[in-house]
Amino acid sequence: MNTDMNELISVAAGRKPADLVIKNAAVADVFNGRWVAGDVAIVGGNIAGVGTYSGKIEIDGTGKYVLPSFYDTHMHFESVMIRPSEYLKAAVPRGVTAINADPHEIANVCGEAGIKFMLDDVKGIPCDVHFMMPSCVPATPEDKSGCVLDASDVKRISEKYDLFGLGEMMNFPGVIGGDSDMLKKLEVCGITDGHAPSVVGNALNAYLCGNILTDHECETVDEVREKIGKGMYVMIREGSQTKNLKTTIQAVDKTNLRRFLFCTDDRNVEDLFKIGTITNAVRLAVECGLKPIEAVTIASLNAYEAYGIKKHGAIAPGYSADLLLCSDNIAQKIDAVFYHGKKVAQNGKPLFDVTPADARGLYGSVHIKPVTEKDFEFEFKKGMPVMRVFPNTVVTQTVNAESRDGLNLMCCIERHSASGMIGHCYVDGFSLKNGAIAQTVGHDAHNITVLGDNARDMLIAVNGLGRDGGLVLVKDGKLIGRLPLEIAGLMTDATAETAIKIRAELFSALDDMDYNKHIEPFMLLSFLTLIVIPDAKLNHKGLFGVSRWDYLYRG
Amino acid sequence: MNTDMNELISVAAGRKPADLVIKNAAVADVFNGRWVAGDVAIVGGNIAGVGTYSGKIEIDGTGKYVLPSFYDTHMHFESVMIRPSEYLKAAVPRGVTAINADPHEIANVCGEAGIKFMLDDVKGIPCDVHFMMPSCVPATPEDKSGCVLDASDVKRISEKYDLFGLGEMMNFPGVIGGDSDMLKKLEVCGITDGHAPSVVGNALNAYLCGNILTDHECETVDEVREKIGKGMYVMIREGSQTKNLKTTIQAVDKTNLRRFLFCTDDRNVEDLFKIGTITNAVRLAVECGLKPIEAVTIASLNAYEAYGIKKHGAIAPGYSADLLLCSDNIAQKIDAVFYHGKKVAQNGKPLFDVTPADARGLYGSVHIKPVTEKDFEFEFKKGMPVMRVFPNTVVTQTVNAESRDGLNLMCCIERHSASGMIGHCYVDGFSLKNGAIAQTVGHDAHNITVLGDNARDMLIAVNGLGRDGGLVLVKDGKLIGRLPLEIAGLMTDATAETAIKIRAELFSALDDMDYNKHIEPFMLLSFLTLIVIPDAKLNHKGLFGVSRWDYLYRG
Repeated sequence: MNTDMNELISVAAGRKPADLVIKNAAVADVFNGRWVAGDVAIVGGNIAGVGTYSGKIEIDGTGKYVLPSFYDTHMHFESVMIRPSEYLKAAVPRGVTAINADPHEIANVCGEAGIKFMLDDVKGIPCDVHFMMPSCVPATPEDKSGCVLDASDVKRISEKYDLFGLGEMMNFPGVIGGDSDMLKKLEVCGITDGHAPSVVGNALNAYLCGNILTDHECETVDEVREKIGKGMYVMIREGSQTKNLKTTIQAVDKTNLRRFLFCTDDRNVEDLFKIGTITNAVRLAVECGLKPIEAVTIASLNAYEAYGIKKHGAIAPGYSADLLLCSDNIAQKIDAVFYHGKKVAQNGKPLFDVTPADARGLYGSVHIKPVTEKDFEFEFKKGMPVMRVFPNTVVTQTVNAESRDGLNLMCCIERHSASGMIGHCYVDGFSLKNGAIAQTVGHDAHNITVLGDNARDMLIAVNGLGRDGGLVLVKDGKLIGRLPLEIAGLMTDATAETAIKIRAELFSALDDMDYNKHIEPFMLLSFLTLIVIPDAKLNHKGLFGVSRWDYLYRG
Repeated sequence: MNTDMNELISVAAGRKPADLVIKNAAVADVFNGRWVAGDVAIVGGNIAGVGTYSGKIEIDGTGKYVLPSFYDTHMHFESVMIRPSEYLKAAVPRGVTAINADPHEIANVCGEAGIKFMLDDVKGIPCDVHFMMPSCVPATPEDKSGCVLDASDVKRISEKYDLFGLGEMMNFPGVIGGDSDMLKKLEVCGITDGHAPSVVGNALNAYLCGNILTDHECETVDEVREKIGKGMYVMIREGSQTKNLKTTIQAVDKTNLRRFLFCTDDRNVEDLFKIGTITNAVRLAVECGLKPIEAVTIASLNAYEAYGIKKHGAIAPGYSADLLLCSDNIAQKIDAVFYHGKKVAQNGKPLFDVTPADARGLYGSVHIKPVTEKDFEFEFKKGMPVMRVFPNTVVTQTVNAESRDGLNLMCCIERHSASGMIGHCYVDGFSLKNGAIAQTVGHDAHNITVLGDNARDMLIAVNGLGRDGGLVLVKDGKLIGRLPLEIAGLMTDATAETAIKIRAELFSALDDMDYNKHIEPFMLLSFLTLIVIPDAKLNHKGLFGVSRWDYLYRG
């Protein structure tokens, strides 16, 4: 990959022509925070230098900007519901040539086989995809996911596939409490991403003694400054569901800027195509007051520095030639993307082919006992605890309901081992009428979640998921929309364009249904099973009260 | 060395008492550039956190400051003329707990044996001494040093002793020109320090393509900014002979601050005791306008970051407990130094013992053919090229002398293989009368240099060096001062205190001699043999014109 040193020096010194020169551009100097005029000389996969150069191929950069390409420091491909190679065909032309991906969701369904598929799917794609080892499979001991990966599995899989580090350590109570399996996992992997919402003070100190490098869960400026001050790199997260940039950016100043990174965490496929990934964060950061070169520095140099990757993230001699040629200085108009010195995208279109991995081994991931309408009948008792949901948050409340009116029934059906276990609860605030929604995406165990106002439609919805799973809509006894997610019940095996088209149809069908239109039903439903977020959540065993860390009832 | 993770977490979380707590101090937050109030909890060799803590031992830090201890990123022990262990007994109490040392001088005399001695001498001392592999032994092919280390030697010795990286690559013309032996050396060692005075533009690009990380030779603000912008870390050098801080600090701003380090390069023993090493740079930086926390950040975090050393250089959870307890915020009044959690110095005094390595194998490094007065007679020819010297610089001029009046004779006697080779030249500007100076320190080959106005005194001076070498003064036929440098002819085997006492006597004896008092004779003489600095320099073959890169005459 790296150009021979003698060759590189000969080109830099001007004794040999460069392979490629971008002439007369404004070049980002992310070290001094300025733009310098010059020719960017590239030989093989590396930058020889910025100066006055001639090349075998010369591109006129007059009026253009050359930036280091961007690094998405934390994301989950599964959230996009398309396979990694489909994602990258869109993300690379939008300026990203490095990603830390945590295949946490697919590992919860398929374990090692899921991780291997993700690795295989990105092979040969012009992007440095660093896969992290999922740290919490399952997320908690209460979850029933498709797989359990203990510390010895983490060590074995990490080493077998040469993974980049340990993925977000969500089990912060475990780390702080000194849980021995968690500590063993932390000791195995050099780089460890964190996940510590609202953890501060001595508890944060304890968490950081677990060798945690980053956090992407900050909610307030004070929390950001404390985490930075204690040595963390803070990822400014701007995803499709979780949008923290406008708050956390307020904590950035010229001194601590070096300790910030950008990440998307989750991205839906529509946003990927419409607003991109890290380019969106860069644009918003500048809107919030950062200088363009500062936002670019966060998106490039800082990320490589945080992860100890040398000679990346800047336009400088000997650096990897991963760069963007843009019509503007914040990469909103990217003319071309170069990766290891080769042009890999132009005007938003990929110039590379992908060789998708065979996913058929991950089809048919839904294993349930046959269900009947009876499974979707659940006795309502006056005063029983129910889950209340709200728009724009995945946090719920536990309330005691006096009447069944307006409530929906939600069920969580264990789908990995056909155990027949089903948890039930009533949900206030969803207000779905004459229909049901079912899906195989349900963080983090990804059991089946189904919600509706009548047992018939709920049964049709669950049966509509089939063996492969997906997202299903049922109205008045009829299946009116379905996005198959054949790959582990999480990702479609179709193209991104097909996914967008089907999702558009689904959302259109949703328009005709009667429910609380302030919520995005599929997204919200996917988080109502996540028992690490307060307060009432449903798993396959029953309704769980997060704040008391126990079941409100089982069944 | 590192505290067990479970133990560390238990203390950080407050479940167990710390080993040591510094209570209620102002603690440097080098990430945010601020001071935070709190207790610093330490367990084993690591910091558990800053917060509210109790410990088995508690120190009242009220009104005090806690800083990460300092890192001298480039220095040569040999310049101090005392052995490394003697140096560290003074440097550690003055705030330094990490050093990159390049044993370039002793390697030029004794090769591997010299390097091994240096490593052995620092063993057990509470300071992270990272030895670099000398890159240029000899400095140029024209030099006759005691040893030649080619690329295969560099590889072998680096690996055998697990050295930290490649020492300052002074042969920048070789790198830029693609010299194959230089390139092989660069490919062997991951970390490579640079040395590229006034190298800019495409030549600098070429040099950096050789994977050079740092530079400590910057002379102007523009040069600094260019080097920073091309990815180098710039060491702000403030030594005893070379003082660049007041110029280079002008290039520091809040954006590029992360890319600056401090180093001393050379330090004489008097300055070591009087003004310290990195503390002196910190004080001057603040006098030049940096905030205290900024200067502290350059002295600590930046240095560790540059060299990719994790969990060092800050007061943060999990970090190595290397810190200073001070009465002021720029470490001019250091109450105590802690290294790996242990107090290793108090009020300027070391609390540790050293076990000096046996240096006797490096005694007797002077191997010359017997000399007579005839060797110090050299025909003067009207109009011949002579070396003109000036105060405050080691740069010389080549001039054609019309008369011998006022000139001194200088000789360079090869001292490693008793070859009998002696170079001669006349020197204008030294103006020594009725005496001679001789020494075995002469960069970088460290042959004998002797300068005087008469052959008798020059002979006495050279014979006064004996088999062990040192610094010698002769006046009116009498040896009036001598500092023995038994270790390779470069360092005394006496204590620092003895060295200071003898040097004081030497300087006092110099006071009674008649010479240009604007120069420091021993220092200047040691650089008049260094043929990589312009213009007329003398080696064992004759007078060398650096600008024409050839001998002005031989003999």
